[in-house]
Amino acid sequence: MAKQNSIEKKPNEAIEDLGKSIINDIDSGRNPKFTTLARTRSNILYDQKNRYLKLGSASEERSFINVAQSKKFMQTIAIAAKCHKFIKENLHTTIRGLYYQLKFSLGEDVDENIFSEQAESNPLIEDLEVALGLKREELNLNANRKGVLAGNLKIIDTFGNEKIEIDCTKQGRSGWAIPSDVDNDIEFVDVKAKYVLVVEKDALWQRLNEDLFWKKENAIIMTPQGQAARGTRRLIKKLSEKGLPVYVFTDSDAWGWYIYWTIKTGSINLAYIGGDVATPDAKFIGVTMSDLDKYEFLNKLTINASEVDLKRAQEMISYEWIKKYKEWEVELARMIKSKKKLEQDALQGPRLTFVDEYIKEKIKNRDFLP
Amino acid sequence: MAKQNSIEKKPNEAIEDLGKSIINDIDSGRNPKFTTLARTRSNILYDQKNRYLKLGSASEERSFINVAQSKKFMQTIAIAAKCHKFIKENLHTTIRGLYYQLKFSLGEDVDENIFSEQAESNPLIEDLEVALGLKREELNLNANRKGVLAGNLKIIDTFGNEKIEIDCTKQGRSGWAIPSDVDNDIEFVDVKAKYVLVVEKDALWQRLNEDLFWKKENAIIMTPQGQAARGTRRLIKKLSEKGLPVYVFTDSDAWGWYIYWTIKTGSINLAYIGGDVATPDAKFIGVTMSDLDKYEFLNKLTINASEVDLKRAQEMISYEWIKKYKEWEVELARMIKSKKKLEQDALQGPRLTFVDEYIKEKIKNRDFLP
Repeated sequence: MAKQNSIEKKPNEAIEDLGKSIINDIDSGRNPKFTTLARTRSNILYDQKNRYLKLGSASEERSFINVAQSKKFMQTIAIAAKCHKFIKENLHTTIRGLYYQLKFSLGEDVDENIFSEQAESNPLIEDLEVALGLKREELNLNANRKGVLAGNLKIIDTFGNEKIEIDCTKQGRSGWAIPSDVDNDIEFVDVKAKYVLVVEKDALWQRLNEDLFWKKENAIIMTPQGQAARGTRRLIKKLSEKGLPVYVFTDSDAWGWYIYWTIKTGSINLAYIGGDVATPDAKFIGVTMSDLDKYEFLNKLTINASEVDLKRAQEMISYEWIKKYKEWEVELARMIKSKKKLEQDALQGPRLTFVDEYIKEKIKNRDFLP
Repeated sequence: MAKQNSIEKKPNEAIEDLGKSIINDIDSGRNPKFTTLARTRSNILYDQKNRYLKLGSASEERSFINVAQSKKFMQTIAIAAKCHKFIKENLHTTIRGLYYQLKFSLGEDVDENIFSEQAESNPLIEDLEVALGLKREELNLNANRKGVLAGNLKIIDTFGNEKIEIDCTKQGRSGWAIPSDVDNDIEFVDVKAKYVLVVEKDALWQRLNEDLFWKKENAIIMTPQGQAARGTRRLIKKLSEKGLPVYVFTDSDAWGWYIYWTIKTGSINLAYIGGDVATPDAKFIGVTMSDLDKYEFLNKLTINASEVDLKRAQEMISYEWIKKYKEWEVELARMIKSKKKLEQDALQGPRLTFVDEYIKEKIKNRDFLP
């Protein structure tokens, strides 16, 4: 069975096809097997044309009659069978819930506990996602969720047999909580905002929300609350595909940069769904080391970079998807030289609303890093 | 100036009174000072009658003409002045934003940076909360927020000069995100739900939400997403005060128990606002070690308790607010003896919806731990 990424197929049909191909193999006296792409570091590459991290073409076969693979093969098929059931039941769980179902139903039938640790089932789920060309969200497995947004768009969430309309200008101090799955039974409509501002920290998001920044600027303000979860990355991409520019606003430090590059080019861990979660057109709005030249007061609000920051900055300079941008080389080199970093919170120094002015000015002058 | 916990006073009046008392001291040639309650471990006690952790009566004076206190005194007054400004501006920030404002406006006027580390300003904010008898939320300082809920209640959030009504039966897969401040400019109305179920893990909350458990049971389902943030603890208490029973549903391990006891009796760290955040009538619904007797299948879904779990269980047995309950002694002893623990996720073993049945049965039989 080949990877079906290019074919639009309902999840359960894809699982059934996998099952049929295995039965065919057995009926024909062949060793049952399926093919997945290698998720090893050497098969993760930066796609120059599409500008994101993805898997290369190295494939791996999982076959049943193979001492090293037999157990994993059986485990993977057990996972596929469980997901097939979840989809038929129209119920969702997490990989932890799946793990317990496997432990419950397979622990007795076979001599040994076929899943003794969840760490065993996780890579097999990724195998299955790649082999079937489906995301785990389509297999009814919720990933961790995190992140909120506010702004001029509406959500139609088909939930409990009802179509629930959520107006993201009417979410008050809380904002709308971004779910794990932003693709299935959910639509983003009346997107009248002009751009998306992604703010690293919830604290700054709350600051901007209180100022009704999203209303004054006709923007969508979103916070991933740190590193962006799968659902948040996917939603940023979807909004970008609707034509909205995406501006990312983080600390000027290793963690902030990591958050930005993960949104823009995807990440090593999720390279196997890179095309679904990367937003290559995202721009970096700040804070930057060069803000220290533009805003004098920030010089007394820097803090010392940690060893981790410095080490990470050094590594980032060497990444091919970063070093191709002169501006980023300068930015990173400046931190390494000065051993100082800057937090987005520092923009509140002169007055709480200064952060609004800062962002508006950056956007007006198109003062971004690529 | 004495602690004003018992007096209802607008936040800025309380701050102004503090300022006036200091000016009075100066005008009268006295050493300016204010009084706060000691937040040392020895002054934290379990209130037998009210059943929560609170500060004792040991008070501490902070005075200006005192080599050890002079700097802290000045810093505390600077914090009070900033909060007074935030309240007048009707704008909120975090303790991190406050820190940068202090660094910005005081870094130049005096020879040394009066706040070089945020760790320096945090305890002073607590000093001020206690001295003024106000929570930081009333000083326009947002705390971290976390947690979501769904169920039959409405929220009137006065936000951006609008009264926004949020119907918590219409939040779809996301739920309503619980904010930092659940007291000011926000009301909880039409609370028609019959009880509050607090679910440790967001994953399980999503499972129950998908099953419309809140609708079928006429309950409010809430998840603190791990340890409960200040806003979530406060909201649980407010709902309890409206007469709703509160049932807490966590893992049967050290972390889960800690979440429960923090909700019920408050915590050491927040003992200074114990009366505002503890919900002494909360009950523990599960999962429990004794579930292993009631639900045979759970025996194959236990996992090994960690050293931390065992050590913590041993400590908890000795707490006066826990050891007074025989049931908890038995529960804790059982884990210590078996070295096994149980996750709430394990209830998904037989079928995804089993968790619903489990909770309903527990409530029907009033099968709780105190």
